[in-house]
Amino acid sequence: NVMAMGQFYLFSLVLGTLGSLCTLFTVYWVQHWHDGFGWDGTKLMFNWHPVLMVTGMVVLYGAASLVYRLPQSWVGSKLPWKLLHAVLHLAAFVLAVLGLVAVFNFHYHNRLSNLYSLHSWVGITAVTLFACQWLLGFTVFLLPWASLSLRSLLKPIHVFFGAVILSLSMASVLSGINEKLFNLKNATAPYSSLPPEACFANITGMLVVAFVGIVLYVLLVSSWKRPEPGILTDRQPLLHERK
Amino acid sequence: NVMAMGQFYLFSLVLGTLGSLCTLFTVYWVQHWHDGFGWDGTKLMFNWHPVLMVTGMVVLYGAASLVYRLPQSWVGSKLPWKLLHAVLHLAAFVLAVLGLVAVFNFHYHNRLSNLYSLHSWVGITAVTLFACQWLLGFTVFLLPWASLSLRSLLKPIHVFFGAVILSLSMASVLSGINEKLFNLKNATAPYSSLPPEACFANITGMLVVAFVGIVLYVLLVSSWKRPEPGILTDRQPLLHERK
Repeated sequence: NVMAMGQFYLFSLVLGTLGSLCTLFTVYWVQHWHDGFGWDGTKLMFNWHPVLMVTGMVVLYGAASLVYRLPQSWVGSKLPWKLLHAVLHLAAFVLAVLGLVAVFNFHYHNRLSNLYSLHSWVGITAVTLFACQWLLGFTVFLLPWASLSLRSLLKPIHVFFGAVILSLSMASVLSGINEKLFNLKNATAPYSSLPPEACFANITGMLVVAFVGIVLYVLLVSSWKRPEPGILTDRQPLLHERK
Repeated sequence: NVMAMGQFYLFSLVLGTLGSLCTLFTVYWVQHWHDGFGWDGTKLMFNWHPVLMVTGMVVLYGAASLVYRLPQSWVGSKLPWKLLHAVLHLAAFVLAVLGLVAVFNFHYHNRLSNLYSLHSWVGITAVTLFACQWLLGFTVFLLPWASLSLRSLLKPIHVFFGAVILSLSMASVLSGINEKLFNLKNATAPYSSLPPEACFANITGMLVVAFVGIVLYVLLVSSWKRPEPGILTDRQPLLHERK
């Protein structure tokens, strides 16, 4: 058990590091090769898109998914952890929406079409499912009306869709990086010669793959779960919380 | 139970239909818009790449993953089903390797670089993990030497990596379709105006998303699993199979 605990903190350390690297690498990419950030309808506004999507739909989303894997969440009332889970996911969702505003606004100012690429179809599917998932989670698991049987029925589906949305986000991030590298304007070298920028952005994509892989492992396979007796507290609705 | 059975056959029907559509749509795409197939180092050889990867790494791989979800596999000896699982996955792997030969050979004949895009990095990661997964599965679950405790330890990891490989294949297919549509030579219209080819190929990508989503649902969430007593037969190694 002490070993399992040590292993858990090792995974947390790896996840924290990988997650930070995903965001930092994306920031460095647009800062170093694409002139940084702005909120003015130019490509500086577009530059927020990759940073906000990676940070919202992957890094913060992944962290928010694993709240119940923290050993601290296994004892005492489940309510504060549910609130944390909901609030972190809401923050992730807000970042994702800002990321969409950045790209739609860039398209609008530059008279470019919206939502034609497969990248955008997959991405918008992920964000839409995320919105439904959050609302369903809020309604069923946080509000007090749902019965224990309904919650038990929906819990595995909630976890499954959580994993699906993260996979779709990963697919969308990867196709987005790939698309951007093929469509570079004024590139000093084509993608096929793998210039430093392309290599750096590819590595950023692989960091996202590694981060998502580890999140899914901890979420679906690891035994770091609130122990069975904790299920009892599942039935306690928000407004009737007992200590 | 009869209802669960009916539901299972409904899912099978949907999966069979979706899987066939994934392959047929990919074939129609290259046949109708890219002059069909050849094995001659030209772009007609490249055209095998999307068809073989979608059919091998997604459709056949997905079908092979669900062998133990067939109610027929729940009674009697597990060995024939293990063999079917291994053989179907081997067939999927062979298709994937042929799909890689098609693209490497096309690159070779046209002096194009290999393995520079993020699409290729993710794809080659998926195929490499698949090779490791198959060899590990063969060694541990089909050969007779492994103990029950080793098998129980590795089984959830085997299922998890099965799901990860399918997700990576999906991500790779989506980025590949997206990349191809951005890089069309002699296109009558740019991707951004969503010409019929782009719309058709986007829909093909979304069919892959739907197929993979349902496979993962049946694999990870559904209760169509070999019932617990079946675990006993897990310990029977290949060469000591009892009826």
